[in-house]
Amino acid sequence: MKRVSFIDLGSNSVRFVIMEIADNGSYQLIYQQKESIRLSENMWTHNRLTEEAIQRALSSMKAFSHMAEAMDSHEIYAVATAAVRLAHNGGEFINRVKEETGIDLVCISGEEEAHLGFLGVINTIGLRDFVLFDLGGASVEVTLVRDRQALRSVSLPMGALTLTGKFQSDKEMSGEERLRMQAYIQELLSDEEWLAGVGLPLVGIGGTARNLAKMDQRAHEYPIAKLHNYELTRERLEAIYRQVCNKTLAQRRKISGLSQERADIIIAGTALIMELMDYTKASAMRVSGCGLREGLFYRYYGENYMNPDGIIDNILLHSAENVLLGMPQNDLIHAKYIARLTDMLYEQWQSLHGGDDRMRELLRVAALLHDIGKRINYYSHARHSAYMIVNSNLYGISHYEQAMCSFMAADSHGANSKYMKSSPYGRLLSDDDKGVVHRISMMLALAEAIDESHEQATVSVSTVIKDDAVELTVWTKHGVNTSIAEVAVNKLLKQFKKEYKRTLHVKWCEAL
Amino acid sequence: MKRVSFIDLGSNSVRFVIMEIADNGSYQLIYQQKESIRLSENMWTHNRLTEEAIQRALSSMKAFSHMAEAMDSHEIYAVATAAVRLAHNGGEFINRVKEETGIDLVCISGEEEAHLGFLGVINTIGLRDFVLFDLGGASVEVTLVRDRQALRSVSLPMGALTLTGKFQSDKEMSGEERLRMQAYIQELLSDEEWLAGVGLPLVGIGGTARNLAKMDQRAHEYPIAKLHNYELTRERLEAIYRQVCNKTLAQRRKISGLSQERADIIIAGTALIMELMDYTKASAMRVSGCGLREGLFYRYYGENYMNPDGIIDNILLHSAENVLLGMPQNDLIHAKYIARLTDMLYEQWQSLHGGDDRMRELLRVAALLHDIGKRINYYSHARHSAYMIVNSNLYGISHYEQAMCSFMAADSHGANSKYMKSSPYGRLLSDDDKGVVHRISMMLALAEAIDESHEQATVSVSTVIKDDAVELTVWTKHGVNTSIAEVAVNKLLKQFKKEYKRTLHVKWCEAL
Repeated sequence: MKRVSFIDLGSNSVRFVIMEIADNGSYQLIYQQKESIRLSENMWTHNRLTEEAIQRALSSMKAFSHMAEAMDSHEIYAVATAAVRLAHNGGEFINRVKEETGIDLVCISGEEEAHLGFLGVINTIGLRDFVLFDLGGASVEVTLVRDRQALRSVSLPMGALTLTGKFQSDKEMSGEERLRMQAYIQELLSDEEWLAGVGLPLVGIGGTARNLAKMDQRAHEYPIAKLHNYELTRERLEAIYRQVCNKTLAQRRKISGLSQERADIIIAGTALIMELMDYTKASAMRVSGCGLREGLFYRYYGENYMNPDGIIDNILLHSAENVLLGMPQNDLIHAKYIARLTDMLYEQWQSLHGGDDRMRELLRVAALLHDIGKRINYYSHARHSAYMIVNSNLYGISHYEQAMCSFMAADSHGANSKYMKSSPYGRLLSDDDKGVVHRISMMLALAEAIDESHEQATVSVSTVIKDDAVELTVWTKHGVNTSIAEVAVNKLLKQFKKEYKRTLHVKWCEAL
Repeated sequence: MKRVSFIDLGSNSVRFVIMEIADNGSYQLIYQQKESIRLSENMWTHNRLTEEAIQRALSSMKAFSHMAEAMDSHEIYAVATAAVRLAHNGGEFINRVKEETGIDLVCISGEEEAHLGFLGVINTIGLRDFVLFDLGGASVEVTLVRDRQALRSVSLPMGALTLTGKFQSDKEMSGEERLRMQAYIQELLSDEEWLAGVGLPLVGIGGTARNLAKMDQRAHEYPIAKLHNYELTRERLEAIYRQVCNKTLAQRRKISGLSQERADIIIAGTALIMELMDYTKASAMRVSGCGLREGLFYRYYGENYMNPDGIIDNILLHSAENVLLGMPQNDLIHAKYIARLTDMLYEQWQSLHGGDDRMRELLRVAALLHDIGKRINYYSHARHSAYMIVNSNLYGISHYEQAMCSFMAADSHGANSKYMKSSPYGRLLSDDDKGVVHRISMMLALAEAIDESHEQATVSVSTVIKDDAVELTVWTKHGVNTSIAEVAVNKLLKQFKKEYKRTLHVKWCEAL
């Protein structure tokens, strides 16, 4: 086991995480801290970091260095972005950080910043083609991603803080100032022809994007508090933009979901996103809670544990296995076996359930994680597994899909409509969806019943589908006692009949 | 690590559990199975187990033996109770079990049965003085417990199944038959003068007691599905008794919470409990989900890991530590340190919060378990800890107290009213209770902030309470950097002011 720390010293805030990597390669966040230090504040007159800002940064860095040490993390990877990059005294500042905290702070280029943000997103958001932006205090990095590769990126020297500072002369930004700011943003964007009208979804990193998602969730009483992978349509963004422009700072401070520290710079930030949307002709924006910090981690993890480009192939499966491996003593063999058996049934029953490849993947994840709740309590463990599935760091999966997955696990010993009703995630599903969950999860429940004794005694299954019946043959190892499994399977026959309008006949045969 | 199996072969059902005991002595249930085999069915004419019943039992026992083997549990402790004890062919049956399954089934006396039930209850229900009954299919064991010691017990040869068989001549029990049954029960009880009018609460084990609790919970839309330690008043029991007596079997089958398999014998079972209540002058009954099975485990655990009498001293603390130890890799040192620091504050602030010793214990449990949710996700871990606290096997704590405890943990980084609102457990608390939680949990939040760096750098704390202020001195080890802790503590000052109407001044001093 080792613990590695990562620091992202931005122009507005500084972020610190400690990741723990277990001997089996699974990893998890064990500490995180964020401080709003506004490093770029008042720096633009002379393009110098002010002594006050430097002191704030040093104080945070000292604390983080100390914290890393206290938590037995002896490797720290720290990067600084736009503010340090653009300040005349950036180099001097880096030396002071080294002297006073021992941390080797690396000032990265706009391209590298964009690339790290890309790594944080590509490993946690399941899109292949999109335009990624990382909107910070003093710069925005925009990256064109196609087929999960970053094709081109640019770092533009404008951010939520600097745009506000440049265009707002008084306490509030006037309508005229806003128009001038928009024209300025458009001008900077117009040089990037490779982005013009690409028509791909936007993925947004940074505090502005996260705050917009939070405001939208609050306004719509979204049932769950999860920002990563939340989608905002253009219409919704426009509505929020109008709302923040029409309010005074004092009024904005009262908007639910908008953080106090961001109420003053939210107009500039939102304007930039709107312009980027217009320019790229995007119809929606997805918010990523993961960004540069996570990119730093994935680069490290790729180089040391995986592949040097740091891009994970199947992020949903990877993150599910990471959750599984992170649960010590869990019966990994049983979990993987059940996933395989469930998948066999899914394939053989294709004409019965009509599910697609994506549903197959969701079921696979549910099967892998169906028992993790036993760590909380054996009793009601399917329900606890469901709780853990919606609250774990599963990536490459929408909130809706995560809910589906979680309810499939809740159904792993038979349909559990009650749990579905009581969970806030139930509100993400339509009645039809709920029926689909019960139908699809039958295969998991059946696999679980077939391996009720956790012996992996079943070699294979084969199915004959008839008009009014399904004949399932369970091929077991030689000399195996199947009585327990038979009892468990029989308990599911009634539900099968209900879901599939056919009778399930199960034959137990010894394989050669 | 070892896995030990326990089997309780009752007259109505057979129960099987596998417990895993880790090297550090912590234990958890990893498998359980219950089958309704009705071993005593039709046995009373000739006092012989019928061949059909024996076959059902053998089939279950074979399956359990197989399951234990498959799960790497090579020790099985199996006991049989009333049906086998009273049957002329009981010894023969035990031999067949040994021959056909390899299991050494031990037929225990009524006294031993009562004692094992007592062990299951005394280690999981936090009462000192009570009358315990274990109502099975063919017998009821009644035990008088004072000061956590079983003083006297009796096994009476009447149970839910046998009473039904004896007094019900047709499909339904007539009013007259019921009266005769009640008179019979009274007669059997009347020999036990040591139980007459003792005026202690009843604690009930067995399917009848559990079903009554479930019916009551459903009738009152009790927000949580947990039976162990649920209390039923005499009035509620009477209402349920009236309800089941006034319905036909078909109608009873539809009562929410009453299991299909028990609808036919619930009248006799409830009648017996009502008579026992009358005879002992109990005003209420607590239901225990733990009984003979758990008693078998605690006897084993006591003999091998603890003390030979198998009685745990402080069951709340023991079960909390068991949960804590069961969570691998958890920062045990930090958890125990926080519990100690929190407790110091609780003691010094006595005049401020006015909490009693019990509240102190609840806070201690919350402090011990405040971080267990990190295993689910670092983000929102206080909320996950709260979820785990209400769903873990904590014993010696009422549902209401478990909710209090859980919300204290949810508050461990400051008050979290939102979570309280959204949790179904919130409904167990009054508005006043919620205020108490926020006030009491301040001490945990403060301790957590003081050890924000997980260094255990604080040696002690001392408090001076003034009319309008509280002066807290934090004594740290020599040369320790307290900047992180100071930031964390400062974030709580506003909430402190709100809760205690005083200003908190914190002084950081190096101890000698």
